[in-house]
Amino acid sequence: MSDTTNESQTFSAESYFATQSQPPSLAADIQGVHEFIQRQRQANRCVVLVTSGGTTVPLELNVVRFLDNFSAGTRGATSAEYFLKAGYAVIFMHRQFSLQPFSRHYSHTTNPFLNFLEVDASLPSSSTIDSAYPYSHDPAPMAPTPQITVTLAERARLLSVLRAYKAVHEQETLHMLSFVTVNEYLWLLRAVSREMSVLGRKAMYYLAAAVSDFFLPQQRLSEHKIQSGKGSLSIEMDQVPKILKPLVSEWNPEGFIVSFKLETDETLLVPKAQQALERYGHQVVIGNDLHHRKYRVVLISPAAQEDAAKQSNGVLPKYDKFWIEINPNQPSSHPKEIEEDIINELIKRHKTWIESA
Amino acid sequence: MSDTTNESQTFSAESYFATQSQPPSLAADIQGVHEFIQRQRQANRCVVLVTSGGTTVPLELNVVRFLDNFSAGTRGATSAEYFLKAGYAVIFMHRQFSLQPFSRHYSHTTNPFLNFLEVDASLPSSSTIDSAYPYSHDPAPMAPTPQITVTLAERARLLSVLRAYKAVHEQETLHMLSFVTVNEYLWLLRAVSREMSVLGRKAMYYLAAAVSDFFLPQQRLSEHKIQSGKGSLSIEMDQVPKILKPLVSEWNPEGFIVSFKLETDETLLVPKAQQALERYGHQVVIGNDLHHRKYRVVLISPAAQEDAAKQSNGVLPKYDKFWIEINPNQPSSHPKEIEEDIINELIKRHKTWIESA
Repeated sequence: MSDTTNESQTFSAESYFATQSQPPSLAADIQGVHEFIQRQRQANRCVVLVTSGGTTVPLELNVVRFLDNFSAGTRGATSAEYFLKAGYAVIFMHRQFSLQPFSRHYSHTTNPFLNFLEVDASLPSSSTIDSAYPYSHDPAPMAPTPQITVTLAERARLLSVLRAYKAVHEQETLHMLSFVTVNEYLWLLRAVSREMSVLGRKAMYYLAAAVSDFFLPQQRLSEHKIQSGKGSLSIEMDQVPKILKPLVSEWNPEGFIVSFKLETDETLLVPKAQQALERYGHQVVIGNDLHHRKYRVVLISPAAQEDAAKQSNGVLPKYDKFWIEINPNQPSSHPKEIEEDIINELIKRHKTWIESA
Repeated sequence: MSDTTNESQTFSAESYFATQSQPPSLAADIQGVHEFIQRQRQANRCVVLVTSGGTTVPLELNVVRFLDNFSAGTRGATSAEYFLKAGYAVIFMHRQFSLQPFSRHYSHTTNPFLNFLEVDASLPSSSTIDSAYPYSHDPAPMAPTPQITVTLAERARLLSVLRAYKAVHEQETLHMLSFVTVNEYLWLLRAVSREMSVLGRKAMYYLAAAVSDFFLPQQRLSEHKIQSGKGSLSIEMDQVPKILKPLVSEWNPEGFIVSFKLETDETLLVPKAQQALERYGHQVVIGNDLHHRKYRVVLISPAAQEDAAKQSNGVLPKYDKFWIEINPNQPSSHPKEIEEDIINELIKRHKTWIESA
């Protein structure tokens, strides 16, 4: 797949959008976002864009093989619920088939919903009805379908999920958008950000999706399935442009922007997060390490002037570190979720950001 | 990641298993399979191994990025249901989080189950109970949790899914096994096949998983997340060994083996399927093309002697082609699924295979 006449190049955000095709569904998707944002403005709500799940990089035009980033979408789906609970309107921009708010509690693998449904025996089943009318020549009356109910053990938990789900649907404060490829992700992010700019400081970005750092420009994609049997496979990929840069400086300079850094080497966490903040100049980087991310994260943000002045040694810290930690041993019935504390802290900071306008 | 001192090589099945580590959960998984097969033998049932979903190829030891093959697992999950309906016991060896029999009807994305649950208003809710006891100084009696029921519109369909699901659980004819990486898939396939060999001709293999053709040997994996910022990414991958060869010739020579060929170029379908049959000498290759796979497939098998003799032109066909096709325009309420016809045809052939022993 590598081609000497078509070598790898470096893409800026500008050259990326100038050379890579816009997804066909973009216009319709953005129309929906536009209307959603209008309604939230009228209701005077803050709006947060939550991105969630991994992106794929197709290696073939007819996608069979692709490069993927690991993410079930737990962070994004869980966080979206806490934003909704706090009164935010949420645009949930997620990888297709990744976890979603509310339904995430009932994964087909770990907690399949069919397990706690039962056929209600107190209502006559169709066969009982049929045998009750054996001598009639009239057609048997339509047998009522037996009711299906939820087992007592699961009822209380499901009820609280279901009520929150139905309330959100009634208030229309959750808007779903999905992507698969990194190209769809980038085009959507740009268009949604531009739409959100009318919200000024009331717009928050919570960029939890695991976005690929590398991609294969469509100009170098193989049309059909790469045939095996020709020995080893060699892939040369280009860097995905750093999209936070235009997001912060052009698409929505007033937005409160939270990005994520995932590392597998915990010693890289803080320096990498500080580097990102330095490079893009946004509000918060949440650093998390693959193995402890469910109970420990660090929020890195530019140091407040007053805090800096308090430092007695005269060396002004450039960045604040704020660790959020919960007990890793949570009861399985009512586990505390770290996202609850993360969202509470962010909402507090977002409020300050809005007031300091 | 490419390394001149550690160049790509060609793996046979033998050298693969000699150099790539066995997954830690293998022994426990196989113990479960062993007991399942014992029970099915006592019940004199045929057992089919259904593999389903895509495999991943990790690019890092701490998996963040990986190469993936496209597959939601629809073919495997749907087929497993029809095998169960026909009285087969099913070992469902699937990619973690891919679709599963029965719950597949209620995808969180296309048909979320929370949409058809409702809180039953005929039972008093807890708040009504609380206000009914405002003057009592005794603690209010435990408020009963309201019942949750299924909407009338969805009830009939869910009832048939739920009854089939519960029947299968009662009869214990479905055994679940999951994998993520291509390495886990290969080790499981070998071990399960060896366990199934005690079933002789009553064992069927329905290998619908989308298995990667390429992998990165663990000896060349990067320990931590590959850092971007160093320009483009270059990956050199080796070929996955052709696992059908030892499956047919060593692990279970008596098994009835059905493999799949997926192509994006329909003209390659029949020649590729014939080539596979010629190379491995098993019973059936199902050829399907990415865009029409939901309503058209072709079964390629060695030509029967009697059919061959009937040919008047004297040239004996080496392979039979058997197309299965359904109308692509199916009603959304009760769509006909092509897997029903595929499984019926295979079960007929499996019966002949058993009788011809």
